[in-house]
Amino acid sequence: MSRYVTRSLARLIEELRRLPGIGTKSAERIALHILGEPETKAQALAKAILELKEKVILCKSCFNYTEETLCQICQDSTRLQEQICVVERARDVQLFESAGGYHGLYHVLHGVLAPLEGIGPNELKVNELVRRVEGGGVNEVVMATSPTIEGEATALYLQRRLQPTGVSVSRIAYGLPVGSDLDYVDMITLSRSLAHRKQMDP
Amino acid sequence: MSRYVTRSLARLIEELRRLPGIGTKSAERIALHILGEPETKAQALAKAILELKEKVILCKSCFNYTEETLCQICQDSTRLQEQICVVERARDVQLFESAGGYHGLYHVLHGVLAPLEGIGPNELKVNELVRRVEGGGVNEVVMATSPTIEGEATALYLQRRLQPTGVSVSRIAYGLPVGSDLDYVDMITLSRSLAHRKQMDP
Repeated sequence: MSRYVTRSLARLIEELRRLPGIGTKSAERIALHILGEPETKAQALAKAILELKEKVILCKSCFNYTEETLCQICQDSTRLQEQICVVERARDVQLFESAGGYHGLYHVLHGVLAPLEGIGPNELKVNELVRRVEGGGVNEVVMATSPTIEGEATALYLQRRLQPTGVSVSRIAYGLPVGSDLDYVDMITLSRSLAHRKQMDP
Repeated sequence: MSRYVTRSLARLIEELRRLPGIGTKSAERIALHILGEPETKAQALAKAILELKEKVILCKSCFNYTEETLCQICQDSTRLQEQICVVERARDVQLFESAGGYHGLYHVLHGVLAPLEGIGPNELKVNELVRRVEGGGVNEVVMATSPTIEGEATALYLQRRLQPTGVSVSRIAYGLPVGSDLDYVDMITLSRSLAHRKQMDP
């Protein structure tokens, strides 16, 4: 945009450009749209952003996003309590739920092992997963980390950590294109990758 | 998204979906991105939205966006003071400025005539334009309203209103695809359409 843009407009454009999938042109369109709207709408948007950060916490059991102690999936007694699907990010829970076909519980790691970046098991919800399985009542853990090198290494590490508990550990099927982002996988592929999960040999 | 999304997440997704160019999938990605970020970043975004609405006002002379009494274009004494380009929206000023090649002033109407929707000359900055031209020092008014039926009708109406002042009235050239949105016109076409403007016969 030109040098004639006002300071607060330039600042909002800069903030919007940081968001995923928003380029300079989109940021400009959105900022000017907000400027043209009634003040109440801009306030509603700002409030929604602040409230999100204030209210959303992590589920005490599975570390999914929630506004209560336990997330709605952990609270749902109709879900299969003996099955845990391990995912990297809370957004992956939403992806598998949208895909449908899975009726167990989840466990959100909040990342993958990346020793070079200093992310070890203690930086993730690994010990919490082990304790959850040790607590009993679980007979299958499905590894649904990304089909990337780090995701794969994390699944293998977790399998080793869970081995003493005697729980059955499986891995979602390789229908997923290797190295891809789960966000861009279609729902059928996601759903099948869960249905075709295979036993991880110890 | 699934029924397991928390309430404040669902609300932010709803707010984001109202913005131009943001669909459900993008809104989800952005909301989850904000959720994953440090709280200070979300606060910076919310603050930028609120400050934009608090600080940005309309220029007293041309009704472009500004944070002072006069916008930066009106304050710039190197611009041709005797030329006024009439646009529908403040964002069109940014578009023409990005295209380059125009060095006069602007006048933002803040809409087009739409009698069926109850938008007449008094709902727009029409009288302000006439008074500005009557005030003297202007020798050309370039009509840069959209190449739509309403934009065309508005340009013709303004030409009639300005006729008594004896000012020369021109129209940006029809290089613009008819019925299009100025946002999606390329910079060269925009620039040429200004350069090739033609006299509007009384």
